[in-house]
Amino acid sequence: MPDPTPDLSALLRPRSIAVIGASSQPEKVGGMPIRLLRELGYGGRVHPVNTASAEIQGLPATPSLGALGEPVDLAIVAVPAMASADVMAQLAANGTRAAVFFTSGFAEVGEAGTRMQQALAEQARHHGITLLGPNCLGAMNLRERMFATFSPIPLSGLPPLGDVGLVSQSGAFGAYAFALAREAGLGLSHWVTTGNEAGLQVADVIEWLAHDDDTRVILTYMEGCRDGERLRRALAAARAAGKPVVVAKVGVTEAGARSAQSHTASLAGEDAVYQAVFDEYGVHRAESLEAFFRLGYVLSRGRRPSRWHSASGLAADAVAPVAIVTVSGGVGIMMADRAEQLGLPMPPMPAAPAQALRTAIPFASTANPIDVTGQIVAQPRVLLDALRDVAECGEYGSVVAFLAAGANAPALWPELQRTVAALHESNGSAPLLLCGLVADDRRAWLEQHGCLVFREPAHAIEAVAALARAAAQPTDMGDEPAGESLPPLPQLPRIAVDAGALSEHEAMQLLAEAGVPVAPHGLARDADEAVRIAERLGYPVAVKLCSREILHKSDVGGVALNLHDAAAVRAAFARVRDAARRHAEQSGGAPVPFDGVVVARMLRGWGELMVGVRRDPVFGLVALAGIGGTAVEVFRQMAFGLAPLSMPRALAMLRASRAEALFAGHRGNPAVPLERVAEVLVRVSRAAAAIGPRLDTLEINPFIVTADGPVAADAVITLRHDAA
Amino acid sequence: MPDPTPDLSALLRPRSIAVIGASSQPEKVGGMPIRLLRELGYGGRVHPVNTASAEIQGLPATPSLGALGEPVDLAIVAVPAMASADVMAQLAANGTRAAVFFTSGFAEVGEAGTRMQQALAEQARHHGITLLGPNCLGAMNLRERMFATFSPIPLSGLPPLGDVGLVSQSGAFGAYAFALAREAGLGLSHWVTTGNEAGLQVADVIEWLAHDDDTRVILTYMEGCRDGERLRRALAAARAAGKPVVVAKVGVTEAGARSAQSHTASLAGEDAVYQAVFDEYGVHRAESLEAFFRLGYVLSRGRRPSRWHSASGLAADAVAPVAIVTVSGGVGIMMADRAEQLGLPMPPMPAAPAQALRTAIPFASTANPIDVTGQIVAQPRVLLDALRDVAECGEYGSVVAFLAAGANAPALWPELQRTVAALHESNGSAPLLLCGLVADDRRAWLEQHGCLVFREPAHAIEAVAALARAAAQPTDMGDEPAGESLPPLPQLPRIAVDAGALSEHEAMQLLAEAGVPVAPHGLARDADEAVRIAERLGYPVAVKLCSREILHKSDVGGVALNLHDAAAVRAAFARVRDAARRHAEQSGGAPVPFDGVVVARMLRGWGELMVGVRRDPVFGLVALAGIGGTAVEVFRQMAFGLAPLSMPRALAMLRASRAEALFAGHRGNPAVPLERVAEVLVRVSRAAAAIGPRLDTLEINPFIVTADGPVAADAVITLRHDAA
Repeated sequence: MPDPTPDLSALLRPRSIAVIGASSQPEKVGGMPIRLLRELGYGGRVHPVNTASAEIQGLPATPSLGALGEPVDLAIVAVPAMASADVMAQLAANGTRAAVFFTSGFAEVGEAGTRMQQALAEQARHHGITLLGPNCLGAMNLRERMFATFSPIPLSGLPPLGDVGLVSQSGAFGAYAFALAREAGLGLSHWVTTGNEAGLQVADVIEWLAHDDDTRVILTYMEGCRDGERLRRALAAARAAGKPVVVAKVGVTEAGARSAQSHTASLAGEDAVYQAVFDEYGVHRAESLEAFFRLGYVLSRGRRPSRWHSASGLAADAVAPVAIVTVSGGVGIMMADRAEQLGLPMPPMPAAPAQALRTAIPFASTANPIDVTGQIVAQPRVLLDALRDVAECGEYGSVVAFLAAGANAPALWPELQRTVAALHESNGSAPLLLCGLVADDRRAWLEQHGCLVFREPAHAIEAVAALARAAAQPTDMGDEPAGESLPPLPQLPRIAVDAGALSEHEAMQLLAEAGVPVAPHGLARDADEAVRIAERLGYPVAVKLCSREILHKSDVGGVALNLHDAAAVRAAFARVRDAARRHAEQSGGAPVPFDGVVVARMLRGWGELMVGVRRDPVFGLVALAGIGGTAVEVFRQMAFGLAPLSMPRALAMLRASRAEALFAGHRGNPAVPLERVAEVLVRVSRAAAAIGPRLDTLEINPFIVTADGPVAADAVITLRHDAA
Repeated sequence: MPDPTPDLSALLRPRSIAVIGASSQPEKVGGMPIRLLRELGYGGRVHPVNTASAEIQGLPATPSLGALGEPVDLAIVAVPAMASADVMAQLAANGTRAAVFFTSGFAEVGEAGTRMQQALAEQARHHGITLLGPNCLGAMNLRERMFATFSPIPLSGLPPLGDVGLVSQSGAFGAYAFALAREAGLGLSHWVTTGNEAGLQVADVIEWLAHDDDTRVILTYMEGCRDGERLRRALAAARAAGKPVVVAKVGVTEAGARSAQSHTASLAGEDAVYQAVFDEYGVHRAESLEAFFRLGYVLSRGRRPSRWHSASGLAADAVAPVAIVTVSGGVGIMMADRAEQLGLPMPPMPAAPAQALRTAIPFASTANPIDVTGQIVAQPRVLLDALRDVAECGEYGSVVAFLAAGANAPALWPELQRTVAALHESNGSAPLLLCGLVADDRRAWLEQHGCLVFREPAHAIEAVAALARAAAQPTDMGDEPAGESLPPLPQLPRIAVDAGALSEHEAMQLLAEAGVPVAPHGLARDADEAVRIAERLGYPVAVKLCSREILHKSDVGGVALNLHDAAAVRAAFARVRDAARRHAEQSGGAPVPFDGVVVARMLRGWGELMVGVRRDPVFGLVALAGIGGTAVEVFRQMAFGLAPLSMPRALAMLRASRAEALFAGHRGNPAVPLERVAEVLVRVSRAAAAIGPRLDTLEINPFIVTADGPVAADAVITLRHDAA
């Protein structure tokens, strides 16, 4: 049973706070929260707890929680790790609802610390206390001026109040991010660092923020996550609430992943699998701190693309098209490059406004980018009319305008204001994003009127793409992870092994029952039977050793391909049987069970898919697909998706791995509908999911590409003992 | 014969300037330069030329250049295009050395304009006048306060004087870049926009700046270039002078290239070929405006990596290793991710300083990233000792330190200053780059002491990579484009066709003479000869139609593979000859010349290379290489290099295209030394270069990967009529 949705209200909206280990020295870990709460205007009650002093930083102190005589919502705990169990007992006795443990010395320092941390978590769970930390920098609620942190960074200034929630596993990252948000003027609602995550995980905070009315966008930093299911539930909740999630996840490369693992001492899982999860839930991934905050700005302040109709033949489900209007041809090309890289369609200007623009400026370009040329210095109205026309023509989802220093020009500004204000009030016009040099006060005015402003042309285009991505996320999928609502699979035959590998025949049977196309084949115990099967299937055939013990059968001489007649089949049977015997003798152990041979029709195709399912330590069963053969090794362009796959995800995987090219009908091969291929992937993933916790790996290799779609020529399925 | 190196001194360091079409209204095109030159302090003489007024903006005007009675260095021309020929004649009569033509209405508006522009260029060439423009925004020399531009942008402020030269094809881009440089505080030396490039091209300006003492770094914006040879000479000059070139070249994607082409009406050539040229000359390519200026800052202000020795087993020619020191584990991982992506080695901390660090902070990580943890708030000396130790240990080329807000902390700053100052004065210590929040005055102090400062962790790592790239450029290759110093090829046999394709046999012979391994083969006129050749080569063989007219011989049934005996060869000969006859009848034209068949030994390999040489409209012969077969179509991961290739370039191409994986000895195949493969590429490229201007394309496909390296199984060579 999944954990219930965590309630963070006592942590983030406490009416009373006790500080255990309160210090009179404001720079101390036990002193800073008191200073922050007092100086920055927290409205609730603050109770310093200190055995020695009756007064701490001007507040009456109590020698113990017990002496307080009333339960508190939140306890801030700044005592050494050794005292943590004792403190937790006091919290339970007091009826405290939530606790932040700043202290280090737990799981990050070794085994004894890990045991202490586990005990702490168990106590908290038992008493129903929401636990943040230990070894964390705490939390803030900017709206309620609640600062449960020992970081002095709020003292040097707060970011504006806003609707961006920030949650970070790392305290140092969180503090730096807080400072950068302040510098960038990014409005925050909450700030939470989760540290060792004995209780609350990043996922829990995301889920709570998804339901929080003060938060519209969630920025997340993570090095990894222990509970994939919880993360998926949180991301599903955010998607259902229509709140974009931006993630900075480090450990992308091998070197980074190594450092991440040694840093958090946790199994981080594979980055490509995280990416698949992020793709599945429409998470925005930031590759740099700069992009992290920029996405926060864009998604919290920007308007999503407007509804558009297409006179230019774009598919109805295409990404919303963008109009690029520029006073510099060169910058226009720069933006077109970025738009193409991000898959944003750029249909040309519709006929009527194009005609109007060309009449005013004969050498303007009305293709897209729409180049109004430097002439607008002399004719500013032409630029503004063009902006209005493309924003209102209904053909574009968004409009990006590069004005260079135009918005600072005295002649242009009042006219630009009128145009922007009119578009802001008009119904259904496409949102306008400006790029160029804009003085701070004008920038503020533009933002208040729905118009994001950028200095970097590429960033304006990236903003359009991010807003289009946010708009494309379905919000009506509920809290269920995708795939669980699929109808159940037909009952698979009982698998007759406890652990280890299935034989090829068993694996192929299992796939066939799940509706996966497999090469016509049969199991033969003797040479006569092998010939009978071959004649039924039609030549040429392959004869392959069938054994649960020998997975790499070609390595031991257990495979004969391209057999054209009965004599060849008989000879092959004898060779394969001998190979099995020789292998048994050489390995010197118990005789290898010889189940016979698989006789299979040789498939004729023009390429190979590689499709498999494996177990990720964090997210469970993960399907992967890509082009097989040499390409697998060289280009490693595999796409991942959580199993069981949905059809859209399977299609996305075929595109992302470029495997779709195999089915496009090149080089004289027939085209195969991609939906048919995707459905096969879905069936493979559902076969794996039906085996369930016992499945370790499932690999189809080669998955031959034929005119009928992919057909499995061989398969390996391994099970594990530990079917939790 | 190449044009002589252009002399821009009259343009950029004029002692006297005439303004033709001078206007009393400072906002006009003919008025602004006079205002700028007067107000911003140009030291030379300024002569307004105006037929109507005796005085312009307070300066005595002359009715014509002729009336001036003395030659001027530079003429700024602001008259309509129609008057340009007349003005140019006046300039010639006056003895003017250089001219800037602002006016539009030339090649960018159509054919008549193109003719006027050609005439203008011819006049300038004939009279030895250095011509900038037409249709450009002019030029500036910041040191001499020389403003030959009609852009008002210098009026709102100048960037600091510095050593970065900026040249832009686009005027609007140039003006925006000027404003951004001012905002970023990037010190400029010169600013030049080339517009229609009737005379000076971007390449000429780069070459002149390469020899200019005031310039150390060259920032370039281009949409394309007409003269590849000139660009190569310019980049070679910059490299020889040790001056990094940063390029923003737009038109990367197909959409962008289309806009670029329609914008400049010029053949832009293929972006991948530009990239190969940039790689060859160590040019830094910027993908965004932000990166363009950041690279300018880094390369003009940053210290190159110091000399390092390796106790950690790095190859002597490895990229200089970097030490990452961080107060936040998370940000450290972020930086490690970026460093790995950029190929920067990160060896662990040497034993002695590692021991010292662990003694001070037991939970610090001394792997690289070196995580000194948040503990440095309490023990700042530990951080500073670690910085000094890694900078001085000699194992690293550069040190990057993430300090979060540490540099603003009152306790840390004076100590940090002492450490930075000591490192700055010490000989041979590795340069230090800081990342974090740093107040402006402290940042300035750090920069003055050799320490670049970044807010974004990824940018600090990218800076290290850019400086390492700059340091790795050889400066002693002179002005010669790479490859021209190779020994001449042995004389190739006369090619017996004027244009069109060579037959397979001719192509294979030509390659063999150039030292390229080709499949053993022979040309057979009749079946008996085919069998004799087959028996000499050994079975199995292929029999292929040999004709200059039929290039796609398999399409017409002209190929028989895997023939195992004489009977099969005879039958194949008959089939192929019949196929040739049938093709001749069906095409209904003249009988196709049947040169016989190529009989070739079937090669056994485990993969295919795709190698070719083709003609780029800008850069001439370009070699390309990548993995053949399906991979060519799907992944399109081809690498390019100018032909003839050098060995280092050929090796780089094998790596960039990932073709090296074919030779690494996977899947039980033997490993092949990559140098042997690279040498084959060099020989192919030299064979193409030896054919010279007549070569249109050369393609080897398939180039079978065998234990002896790649062996050509088929080749197509096409020649062109127009052997200029």
